[in-house]
Amino acid sequence: MTSAAPILAVGSVAFDSVETPFGKAHEVLGGSAVYFSTSASYFAPVRVVGVVGDDFPPDALAFLDGRPVDLSGLVRKPGRTFRWVGRYGFDLNEATTLDTQLNVFADFKPELPEAFRDTPYVFLGNIDPDLQADVLDQVRSPRLVAADTMNFWISGKLDALRRVLARVDLLLINEAEARQLAGEANLVKAARAIRAMGPKILIVKRGEYGALMFHGEGVFAAPGYLLEAVFDPTGAGDTFAGGVLGFLAREGRLDEPTLRRAIVAGGVMASFNVEAFSLDRLKALAPGDISARYEAFRRLCSFEALG
Amino acid sequence: MTSAAPILAVGSVAFDSVETPFGKAHEVLGGSAVYFSTSASYFAPVRVVGVVGDDFPPDALAFLDGRPVDLSGLVRKPGRTFRWVGRYGFDLNEATTLDTQLNVFADFKPELPEAFRDTPYVFLGNIDPDLQADVLDQVRSPRLVAADTMNFWISGKLDALRRVLARVDLLLINEAEARQLAGEANLVKAARAIRAMGPKILIVKRGEYGALMFHGEGVFAAPGYLLEAVFDPTGAGDTFAGGVLGFLAREGRLDEPTLRRAIVAGGVMASFNVEAFSLDRLKALAPGDISARYEAFRRLCSFEALG
Repeated sequence: MTSAAPILAVGSVAFDSVETPFGKAHEVLGGSAVYFSTSASYFAPVRVVGVVGDDFPPDALAFLDGRPVDLSGLVRKPGRTFRWVGRYGFDLNEATTLDTQLNVFADFKPELPEAFRDTPYVFLGNIDPDLQADVLDQVRSPRLVAADTMNFWISGKLDALRRVLARVDLLLINEAEARQLAGEANLVKAARAIRAMGPKILIVKRGEYGALMFHGEGVFAAPGYLLEAVFDPTGAGDTFAGGVLGFLAREGRLDEPTLRRAIVAGGVMASFNVEAFSLDRLKALAPGDISARYEAFRRLCSFEALG
Repeated sequence: MTSAAPILAVGSVAFDSVETPFGKAHEVLGGSAVYFSTSASYFAPVRVVGVVGDDFPPDALAFLDGRPVDLSGLVRKPGRTFRWVGRYGFDLNEATTLDTQLNVFADFKPELPEAFRDTPYVFLGNIDPDLQADVLDQVRSPRLVAADTMNFWISGKLDALRRVLARVDLLLINEAEARQLAGEANLVKAARAIRAMGPKILIVKRGEYGALMFHGEGVFAAPGYLLEAVFDPTGAGDTFAGGVLGFLAREGRLDEPTLRRAIVAGGVMASFNVEAFSLDRLKALAPGDISARYEAFRRLCSFEALG
């Protein structure tokens, strides 16, 4: 852990109200920066940039005490913290947003503390692409820039998104959004089109079906984990990204075998996250949980040569 | 090949008219027994039981000459051969049936030639479960009974289907149909419920996402192959089943590693089939094509230990 390079994480800090077929959670801690940082902190130090309102309880992030998460870039502003209200049906693959209250997030202007500007790994959470660009303007020669985005920005701010993508090394995106961004139904062709926009590494998230990585000339298909009880998929994508970036920052390499292991590490973290509401499972991982689940992923999809 | 045990295949022989976003095919050869047999014949001898009309051209199956496919159980009846008309949209995952003409298939009563009754491997294609049971009544102590089914029989003939399932060792079924048959959204729980109905081995087909196998205490997730040009998914499920059963009959074992390799072999065959209309690609595989594609599946999803 001590040798892992730090990661800068920019994104939302939120209170989520979530309803799934298995229960309800009211105004529980969430947001892309929180899920990402908690997940990544099992592998590498994280520096968080974000905003909360003056209603944000001082102890809401106390579970991060003792973990390598630097919250000095998390500013408190007058007003209410970002709220999201959503519901999932039985397939748990897509949330229906019932309400979004940006609150203090509406005027969010990421400002990096001077000590954050040389962070080698950067994760741009799913926020306005113009804000993602503002963050990149403030960091000096990062080793790896990773970003997430969504259909809202693809439809509404495509030009700004394209300008950011030209500066991004690793893009994480949902399968349907990859098709939308490329304007192409076939994933192999869509991946080629997206990578021509900038990102050398493209990770396509497929929910319960796992993830694909397009890198160099090859493709990697990581399996999804099979759980008997999936409670709440909220934050799974950011938790996945936290595992991927955390692992890469820990290893300090970007070769194909390391990238593949990083994606499985991301899947491992996401598989824990969906087992409970909010960060209840993710924040309570014991030593050995991660490596045991990683080995379970290996058993899940290993097979021998044809013979 | 000479040491592989034979497989009995019962199912439809059809003329399919198919429209996909990439083209059209009019009254081309199809049917579950044809796709299955052609695929399996690359691994083991196949004995086909089915029915065609007097409009069936004598040379329609000539491409099987020289392959180990015994067509002596394929009877010719007065009337027209089974016809299916369908269309696929851009996602290619589900066909819309535009027309089904059962024709001679409406009165199909499978009758096994005496020489077929001791066939050790049996594949019951997706037909009326009462007919599947008739076939089983005619075979003597098979080593492995595999079956396919669909939503039509789950909704319409559940009791008959349950009676057959009690006699089936290996069930192949689509993901949505597995959930429907079990009345359970979670796949792990659905698999447990279905296996309690009879099949010790359950293979859940997930289209472009690959397949799952539930066997013993474990689960295996096989990846789907990524193709830049998917032309026509018609017959993919039966082609997959042909690869699975063919490989098992060739190997003569049902242990976990062999079952896993068999499922990948099935995926390999299905990945070829969707590259062209009808059996155009499947029937023209060169020596080495199958092992090369199998190795491509290995490269697609291999990753190292966490370290």
